[in-house]
Amino acid sequence: MNDLTEVNLRAPYLIFIGDVKEKLYAKTGLGIIQWRPELVAGQLRFPGCLVDMGVPELSIEDAVTAGVKSLIIGVAPVGGTIPDVWWKTIEQAAMAGLDIVCGLHLKLADASAIAAAAEKSGARLIDVRNPPKNIPVGSGKKRQGKRLLMVGTDCAVGKKYSALAMEQALNNRGLKSTFRATGQTGIMIAGVGVPIDTVVADFISGTAELVSPDNDPEHWDVIEGQGSLFHPGYAGVSLGLLHGSQPDAIIVCHDPSREHMGGMPGYSLPTVRDCIDRNILEGQLTNPAIQCVGICVNTSMLSDKERESYLRNLANEVNLPCVDPLIQGCDEIVTQIKNKYDCNTGS
Amino acid sequence: MNDLTEVNLRAPYLIFIGDVKEKLYAKTGLGIIQWRPELVAGQLRFPGCLVDMGVPELSIEDAVTAGVKSLIIGVAPVGGTIPDVWWKTIEQAAMAGLDIVCGLHLKLADASAIAAAAEKSGARLIDVRNPPKNIPVGSGKKRQGKRLLMVGTDCAVGKKYSALAMEQALNNRGLKSTFRATGQTGIMIAGVGVPIDTVVADFISGTAELVSPDNDPEHWDVIEGQGSLFHPGYAGVSLGLLHGSQPDAIIVCHDPSREHMGGMPGYSLPTVRDCIDRNILEGQLTNPAIQCVGICVNTSMLSDKERESYLRNLANEVNLPCVDPLIQGCDEIVTQIKNKYDCNTGS
Repeated sequence: MNDLTEVNLRAPYLIFIGDVKEKLYAKTGLGIIQWRPELVAGQLRFPGCLVDMGVPELSIEDAVTAGVKSLIIGVAPVGGTIPDVWWKTIEQAAMAGLDIVCGLHLKLADASAIAAAAEKSGARLIDVRNPPKNIPVGSGKKRQGKRLLMVGTDCAVGKKYSALAMEQALNNRGLKSTFRATGQTGIMIAGVGVPIDTVVADFISGTAELVSPDNDPEHWDVIEGQGSLFHPGYAGVSLGLLHGSQPDAIIVCHDPSREHMGGMPGYSLPTVRDCIDRNILEGQLTNPAIQCVGICVNTSMLSDKERESYLRNLANEVNLPCVDPLIQGCDEIVTQIKNKYDCNTGS
Repeated sequence: MNDLTEVNLRAPYLIFIGDVKEKLYAKTGLGIIQWRPELVAGQLRFPGCLVDMGVPELSIEDAVTAGVKSLIIGVAPVGGTIPDVWWKTIEQAAMAGLDIVCGLHLKLADASAIAAAAEKSGARLIDVRNPPKNIPVGSGKKRQGKRLLMVGTDCAVGKKYSALAMEQALNNRGLKSTFRATGQTGIMIAGVGVPIDTVVADFISGTAELVSPDNDPEHWDVIEGQGSLFHPGYAGVSLGLLHGSQPDAIIVCHDPSREHMGGMPGYSLPTVRDCIDRNILEGQLTNPAIQCVGICVNTSMLSDKERESYLRNLANEVNLPCVDPLIQGCDEIVTQIKNKYDCNTGS
């Protein structure tokens, strides 16, 4: 990836969650531990914290001794602001030379004590939401390697988790693959990436091109999707990401409990079939060979029985493997990929 | 339009073109004079200037006496930078209380002498390329009034000029209409607008919604298009603009001499028919009644005979009026609109 544009985090991480009271607010930290346990050295919590992420308890001193390189703010505090007592801890971490990584709507460098501490120790202040500079306009030029993009019937239907589950499933079957992050939580999990929805509109597809650069012919980039072609607020981002990703394959992500497009009463969801067809129609511009290889469904609102019949009916309808990636895993979709593409693996 | 987001220029204008040697480099100034002659008080030129825009010659003192409110930098100097001698004149204009309006890739306020002069006199420094702040995400909510959006088979095929010609043709036939600018030159011509390609990706359709706000039921907003759904670099902007504009009608703009998509050898242009169909398919998300009312063709590379036969064949093919807006004007398309919509006018 382009040196000018990447967010590139240094592991191992100490994950800071302050005195958070509910798991929901610690989902960034929990996501990193779920998908990248090997990068996490421990957690830093205040007395009164009601969430335990199940990793070693480390002070900043312990972390430095253990070779930790970054303090990740793994929590979204209510109101989006960081309490004073947290800033004190962040300042200590910066003084100790740890990079500070933040995905909130603020600039770390605006906190002068943090900026001074980082200046002195050489620590980096990394605002994951900050748009990178010097991104080119999309070129449309074909890149080597295979690409799999998550697309959605709506926003927030599990595209990031589906991509991470697909990366794991591909690697488990001996296919080389890399998760490519395009949103701030994904970037904190992957340690690298560009937050595509923060770049200037003219550079959406150019950003997507940087996110999945040239690679080995047999390698699969598994790209985190954003938004939906059917969302009146975000479809432009989704189209630029689709064009710049040049996917050979797409997976449609869907939540059958959704009653209307996110935040848009009056806009109903497309059918899974319409979502497949539209993404293929638009995706053909930059990759005429694009095809859909499976459907990832968030079935958390369904009973076991409902899930089974929903997935079976959908699979009959679209003639593709349909799974809940967090329940069945994505192995069935990997089989589909191995059948459709000439995959050079041992298994 | 939203107070927080608009660029709103104060007329009359003095148009400054320095010592420019070729018309091409003065096209911003020439465009303003072509489409908004009533807003222009005069031109300010240096000795040696080889372009005459045909409006009165005014010094800054003359302009102040004549009630001029803004100095518009109407030229794109070679290299994009402003020579020192020009800055001196701009500073004098700011000291005299004229707003300074600039569409170049620089920030006027970064020139400290200009900033100081403006501070003292109360003049505004207006960088038309600067993205506005506080834009909302697109809501998808239906607005009152009619909307006509220019779309293109490619970038730079005459969407701005077609929109301006349509505004004029609609007004000539008694239909209330307003040109809505979405790019920097269009904004300098209209005196108001938002440069949509400079906003952050998540806010493209939200910006488009601000550009054509609620209006009288019979009023037509004629919206300047950007890019093309078929351009691998810019389609995301085009889709967000299409969704946020919620057009009742579209006009496809096309240049038959174009051999490939702008800057993209290897990407051929879509047919006019494909461009109509794709824009209608995507535009139906936010306005199910969207239809195409005509084709504007840039025929400047064709002979008179070629033009006539090209436009006739195309009209037979798509069964819609096809015109070169700068040669025939757009009256035939206005007739199409009057026939298709229940237009309440005298003529």
